[in-house]
Amino acid sequence: MKKHNFSAGPCILPPEVLLKASQAVVDFDNSGLSLIEISHRSKPFVDVMEKARTLALELLGLEGKGYKALFLQGGASTQFLAVAYNLLENKAGYLNTGTWSNKALQEAKLFGDIQEVASSKDANFNYIPKGFEVPSDLDYFHCTSNNTIFGTQLKSFPKCDVPMVCDMSSDIFSRQLDFSQFDLIYAGAQKNMGPAGTTLVVIKEDILGKVSRQIPSMMDYKKHIGSGSMFNTPPVFAVYVSMLTLEWLKNLGGVKAIEEINNKKASLIYSEIDLNPLFKGFASKADRSTMNATFTLENDNLKETFETMLKEAGINGLNGHRSVGGYRASMYNALTLDSVKVLVEVMSELESKA
Amino acid sequence: MKKHNFSAGPCILPPEVLLKASQAVVDFDNSGLSLIEISHRSKPFVDVMEKARTLALELLGLEGKGYKALFLQGGASTQFLAVAYNLLENKAGYLNTGTWSNKALQEAKLFGDIQEVASSKDANFNYIPKGFEVPSDLDYFHCTSNNTIFGTQLKSFPKCDVPMVCDMSSDIFSRQLDFSQFDLIYAGAQKNMGPAGTTLVVIKEDILGKVSRQIPSMMDYKKHIGSGSMFNTPPVFAVYVSMLTLEWLKNLGGVKAIEEINNKKASLIYSEIDLNPLFKGFASKADRSTMNATFTLENDNLKETFETMLKEAGINGLNGHRSVGGYRASMYNALTLDSVKVLVEVMSELESKA
Ligand SMILES: Cc1ncc(COP(=O)(O)O)c(C=O)c1O
Ligand SMILES: Cc1ncc(COP(=O)(O)O)c(C=O)c1O
Ligand SMILES: [Mg+2]
Ligand SMILES: [Mg+2]
Ligand SMILES: [Mg+2]
Ligand SMILES: [Mg+2]
Repeated sequence: MKKHNFSAGPCILPPEVLLKASQAVVDFDNSGLSLIEISHRSKPFVDVMEKARTLALELLGLEGKGYKALFLQGGASTQFLAVAYNLLENKAGYLNTGTWSNKALQEAKLFGDIQEVASSKDANFNYIPKGFEVPSDLDYFHCTSNNTIFGTQLKSFPKCDVPMVCDMSSDIFSRQLDFSQFDLIYAGAQKNMGPAGTTLVVIKEDILGKVSRQIPSMMDYKKHIGSGSMFNTPPVFAVYVSMLTLEWLKNLGGVKAIEEINNKKASLIYSEIDLNPLFKGFASKADRSTMNATFTLENDNLKETFETMLKEAGINGLNGHRSVGGYRASMYNALTLDSVKVLVEVMSELESKA
Repeated sequence: MKKHNFSAGPCILPPEVLLKASQAVVDFDNSGLSLIEISHRSKPFVDVMEKARTLALELLGLEGKGYKALFLQGGASTQFLAVAYNLLENKAGYLNTGTWSNKALQEAKLFGDIQEVASSKDANFNYIPKGFEVPSDLDYFHCTSNNTIFGTQLKSFPKCDVPMVCDMSSDIFSRQLDFSQFDLIYAGAQKNMGPAGTTLVVIKEDILGKVSRQIPSMMDYKKHIGSGSMFNTPPVFAVYVSMLTLEWLKNLGGVKAIEEINNKKASLIYSEIDLNPLFKGFASKADRSTMNATFTLENDNLKETFETMLKEAGINGLNGHRSVGGYRASMYNALTLDSVKVLVEVMSELESKA
């Protein structure tokens, strides 16, 4: 049976990417060797790394603008730490929009003063704070563009006199933005880009080199840039699959083209959530994420029926995170509009049964 | 043409492992979903992680002895840093046997005093220092069991009153040792265990919790242990392939069985190096690595002929590291005796041509 994979991450990837990746694990580009058993210093792999780095900048519209792209290990969680190591001399500001931005903030506390610029904790992070000002005495301002767990998304970003750092783990490459307003963007691959195991970091080079502490090599963005994202052995497979996925996106028409599809998917699910009396959206309407739609089923007695219907329809990964409960439909780039239609049909069928 | 893959890392893996891994990328255990698109918190993946962790301890004979196994991101290079973060309060001792141990030592310097207990730098690291004493006032002693670049290997380890930490990146699971003499073992997967992208860390739990500094979450072994090696999204594919490779090794008869094969491969190449007047070994005989045989071709005029012959025989990855020059035959667990025979034939054919 065809599966409809709404998993929050690791998540669905384009079938043609999976097929090519699978092939490369036994025979990479007809070399007679597997992708994962060749030297990372060999020309075929260096080409993969360079292509992935170039595609990332190209798709964000950041080529020739002083940015460098890196594919590192350690997940976005390691970037919580690396950002502070590289940029925090005295004080940084964090926008607290949920679990992940709070974790980022906590890790940074080991390296300097942290000011919570605004927070939506008062309403279990179901909205994005607005109207706050970013102080101009900060080393940097940090925000999380999409809150995977709560299903909220920043639709615009504050004016910012200091470097702006953004965790885009769960919505990078999903919508058009002026990406040059950010000075550092990071994103774990395992949503819109590839498998778990690599993290994209896009850095405006001129923000580096301004802290007085010594930075351990593996945390040092300058060292990673200087070695072409190969300071040590890179996560070869994860970088390769990311490259394939970025290629797929480029061939599809890039971020502009996928944004249209993502908007369609989001409209479809949110109008069902709103119109269907059995379901209720969690996030404040203005801040609803196009990537993760969070909602609850109002009538507990229908839970079993609903979940059986989901299973029968081949729908996977719809459980909400424990911090929110209910359901979460993650609709990353590779999820088709058809899969959302299948989900919406199940939801409306439940209504007719109830 | 069949390839004989002598790459130093990433390196050869068992063909049956590659086949299973390739299959899992399109359809994991007949689930209809790819291994890389399911949640790492789902039971099928948690089972993979737990099996990998258990197999690692079992193959090292460390089950039930107070050790925990972790599969982390960041490569062995991140462990250079993590070891010091977790264990270095005042002073640590390092045995300097080449590039990697020197890098480990340099990173640790950011966290405390470092004493170079012994070094073989005087002879470009072509031997392992012996007869040194490990001071008893150290927080820990660090050594590198196999020096991938220079082709030397510790055949025995010093008596040590303080915790002993060992970088086994390039010879873990290749030979029998009393692994309980070590308190912390780490190894990048990309030699004897799997693809680049994960690092095995095996820790005797009772050495932790003794430093006064605050440790960032992603560097904190206790946090990783407490969350079952899933503090954040693990590198799913690399862990899965490592699990498959450890399973393969167990089915083969474990470390004891592979050690016999590894010894045969090493004897074969080293006797050719010694007997063939065209070649000269780099490492001191007593310290020769069973994993990486380093050697030079004495007559530069034969270089082109030799390399053409290697190519015609399907031999890949024989170039030496720039710090040593010449050639390096890496003979990790998955390399067959047959491949070594093919190489030795080419070497002796060169002699007959010369
Ligand atoms: C927005 C966001 N930031 C950070 C993370 C943590 O990523 P990782 O598990 O790669 O460390 C996640 C994971 O889901 C996330 O959604
Ligand atoms: C003995 C040893 N230690 C450490 C490393 C560094 O490993 P990584 O590239 O995974 O950081 C290597 C890499 O070849 C190695 O051989
Ligand atoms: Mg700015
Ligand atoms: Mg409703
Ligand atoms: Mg001891
Ligand atoms: Mg000789």
